[in-house]
Amino acid sequence: MTPANDGLKAGQAAPAEDLEDLALSDDYALNPAFVEMVVDAADQGNLVRLRELIEALHPADLADLLGFLSSSHREVIVPMLTADELSETLSELDGPLREDVLELVAPENLAKALGEMESDDAADVVDDLEDDKRGEVLAAMSDADRISIESALSYADETAGRLMQREVLAAPQFWTVGQTIQHVQSGGDDLPELFFDVYIVDPSNRPLGAAPLSLLLRSSPDALLSRIMEPVTEIPVDMDQEEVAYIFDKYHLISAPVVEAGGRLVGQITVDDIVGVIQDESEEDMLALAGVSDRGRSDTIMGITRSRFWWLLINLGTAILASCVIGVFQGSIAKLAALAVINPIAASMGGNAGTQTLTVAVRALATRELNAANLLMAVWREIAVGVMNGVAFAIVMGVVTEVWFHNPIMAVIAGLAMVINLIVAAIAGILIPLGLDKMGFDPAASSVVFLTTVTDCVGFFSFLGLATLILLH
Amino acid sequence: MTPANDGLKAGQAAPAEDLEDLALSDDYALNPAFVEMVVDAADQGNLVRLRELIEALHPADLADLLGFLSSSHREVIVPMLTADELSETLSELDGPLREDVLELVAPENLAKALGEMESDDAADVVDDLEDDKRGEVLAAMSDADRISIESALSYADETAGRLMQREVLAAPQFWTVGQTIQHVQSGGDDLPELFFDVYIVDPSNRPLGAAPLSLLLRSSPDALLSRIMEPVTEIPVDMDQEEVAYIFDKYHLISAPVVEAGGRLVGQITVDDIVGVIQDESEEDMLALAGVSDRGRSDTIMGITRSRFWWLLINLGTAILASCVIGVFQGSIAKLAALAVINPIAASMGGNAGTQTLTVAVRALATRELNAANLLMAVWREIAVGVMNGVAFAIVMGVVTEVWFHNPIMAVIAGLAMVINLIVAAIAGILIPLGLDKMGFDPAASSVVFLTTVTDCVGFFSFLGLATLILLH
Repeated sequence: MTPANDGLKAGQAAPAEDLEDLALSDDYALNPAFVEMVVDAADQGNLVRLRELIEALHPADLADLLGFLSSSHREVIVPMLTADELSETLSELDGPLREDVLELVAPENLAKALGEMESDDAADVVDDLEDDKRGEVLAAMSDADRISIESALSYADETAGRLMQREVLAAPQFWTVGQTIQHVQSGGDDLPELFFDVYIVDPSNRPLGAAPLSLLLRSSPDALLSRIMEPVTEIPVDMDQEEVAYIFDKYHLISAPVVEAGGRLVGQITVDDIVGVIQDESEEDMLALAGVSDRGRSDTIMGITRSRFWWLLINLGTAILASCVIGVFQGSIAKLAALAVINPIAASMGGNAGTQTLTVAVRALATRELNAANLLMAVWREIAVGVMNGVAFAIVMGVVTEVWFHNPIMAVIAGLAMVINLIVAAIAGILIPLGLDKMGFDPAASSVVFLTTVTDCVGFFSFLGLATLILLH
Repeated sequence: MTPANDGLKAGQAAPAEDLEDLALSDDYALNPAFVEMVVDAADQGNLVRLRELIEALHPADLADLLGFLSSSHREVIVPMLTADELSETLSELDGPLREDVLELVAPENLAKALGEMESDDAADVVDDLEDDKRGEVLAAMSDADRISIESALSYADETAGRLMQREVLAAPQFWTVGQTIQHVQSGGDDLPELFFDVYIVDPSNRPLGAAPLSLLLRSSPDALLSRIMEPVTEIPVDMDQEEVAYIFDKYHLISAPVVEAGGRLVGQITVDDIVGVIQDESEEDMLALAGVSDRGRSDTIMGITRSRFWWLLINLGTAILASCVIGVFQGSIAKLAALAVINPIAASMGGNAGTQTLTVAVRALATRELNAANLLMAVWREIAVGVMNGVAFAIVMGVVTEVWFHNPIMAVIAGLAMVINLIVAAIAGILIPLGLDKMGFDPAASSVVFLTTVTDCVGFFSFLGLATLILLH
């Protein structure tokens, strides 16, 4: 190799290298300047430049890029992607964005990409296809690939069956460590691309235990698998993915065997699939608390408007209900308009204090830190906190009212309404999610509406009611 | 082995087996009936029974059990735990509960337990000890264990340095696969108990690449590591754990090498540590949105009251500010009390709509789906959604007001206030978290206060202001 040659190579490699550095900002997110470069190249129809830019990206960053582009720019880029690039990028996408991207991919190219993906990821993508395109794509695939995708799709969405990959490393209990290593080295046909454990199975293919690869490597080649294996947590194929994530998190699992009803091994779930599930499930809870059912980054404005409309409509209903409570005391307000000024404060504080309690309860239910064993203690603790903060804020509120309106009786009433509402907020904040959970509903999804209905009505009623009773009689 | 012997063994094993089945309910959470059995045994001082019950539990479930018990029952159980049990259970605990448990453990026993833990977990525990006990415990440990803990503690909390374990499998680039496997089989001294990748390093111990164990097993024993290795993502030792979690999630990493400023390998982070971080970080965001800074299951009532007090006090301030807006229009309310009845509705709707926008924005910032590249598009989309839902609810609100009060002018005003506040809510809902993030604050932590201040004040002002201007002139 001559120096000139070396120089040439370095010269050729440099631009790609530079682009890779430029692609990510310091926080490992895609660099806005890089997105700008892609947009410019797409606008100019410079396909050579686009290819260069695409090749500088990791598949996860390419997926991010697609999310940042407008649909007209996606229309230029997606058809340029090779089957290889698609196979790695499609599994990084989800929701409406993935559906948009899939519409831009030619069926034969997609069939090729799916053949290169793991069975669980491929099934997810096929599930997102529209019916006619699905038929076309499946027809263009090899029989083996099509069968493995169809079998994955036979399991319900969000279950272990859909998360698992069918490829596993399993070995009979009478094998030695050396035999197992040899089996892998000779390239058994059903081996997954990446694996972390060997599952030891009985003659009916039921898991008896597992050995991490690092344990395998450390053991004497003569050791029997049945001697070194560790107990294993089996995942039933129909288990909900939230449950699977809970088990992985709790027992720090890296991979786990999935078994069908008879106990036979049918696949494995690995922790990298679970990290995504954990992200999704806690995000779902957080969005549900705010009344957002779905947040597709690439959803249309009309779609977003519609999805948020229903939650707001329910909230309008509860706001009107609370206003009806004020309406009952319209006569009192006509006599003393100052009541209308102070009236919203206790209600607002109840809503905030109740939301604190409720959020903690929803999280504790999700992480199973709240159950029958500590239920009474938890309820009692929340009520005690409500009483203590209630008394504290009753005093503050009383002082504020006295300073503002120089009316000691109204000050006492404002304080009383505050303590009543903060105690009610604490009780409602813990009992509403518990009740919804007990009845089989998602405690995150609808509890805030119930809570604010209670705290608004009680807040308004206790203040205006006491004022009418004491102040205006 | 005689049949009698066999029978005896089965007989002895049976109760333990039964207890294990009983310990968990169908959802893999600790069974309340089992907790009850522990409480009964502790009340009776039946230590033999307690030992039986403890031994039926996985360390993660033992940790859960400690969380469900009152402190008087913990005082019975914790001193019974062996160093082995402690070493596996302590890393499953955190927060005030772990501090409580640690107070009940004798220093020598704790020193022994720490010696058996991984360096990152042990450092975390030592960090939770009170100063005088920490000295006692460190003094009781072996020099090697103490030095490794002290070195872990030299990194800041919530950084890669604290998450990592120092034990790694590293190999020079000129080794073959066979040499590497032999090195592991001969039990290199610094090997971690469980590992997933071998890091290939240069003579200065800087990572050049990595090979998953499954790749190692599949490769020919003669292959050079430098030939089979894959590119590796290095984690700087001072990187924030949230950033580390983002990288693991984005690139589906199972383990990653941690490097110090000079680029030298100092440890590794594995995905099982990251699953906990991801749970914690998204939980933190969710709780911060509701104004809960910390939720120790075992925190005292006084502690919880105090931690929630400050958020409520800030909310009281904003509620009073909003009431001042009503106070400005006290004269109008005195003339027409119906205004006070309708007044809270637009403000409440603005708060809810703004929270929807805000929650989506906080999530998008956390997952880095929102950045300079799509900022304008996101802001524009939220405003468009605000306008559309604003118009829709203005119509609903107008109709409701007309039906209720038979006052067409008030109906128009109520509708106008609604559309104004929903548009303002959309703008505030996206700009407030973006602004906080830009200024380096946590967008989840304080954005709701700012938002509701805006939506309450604008809601009250637009309705009462328009009514004063149009209706009462």
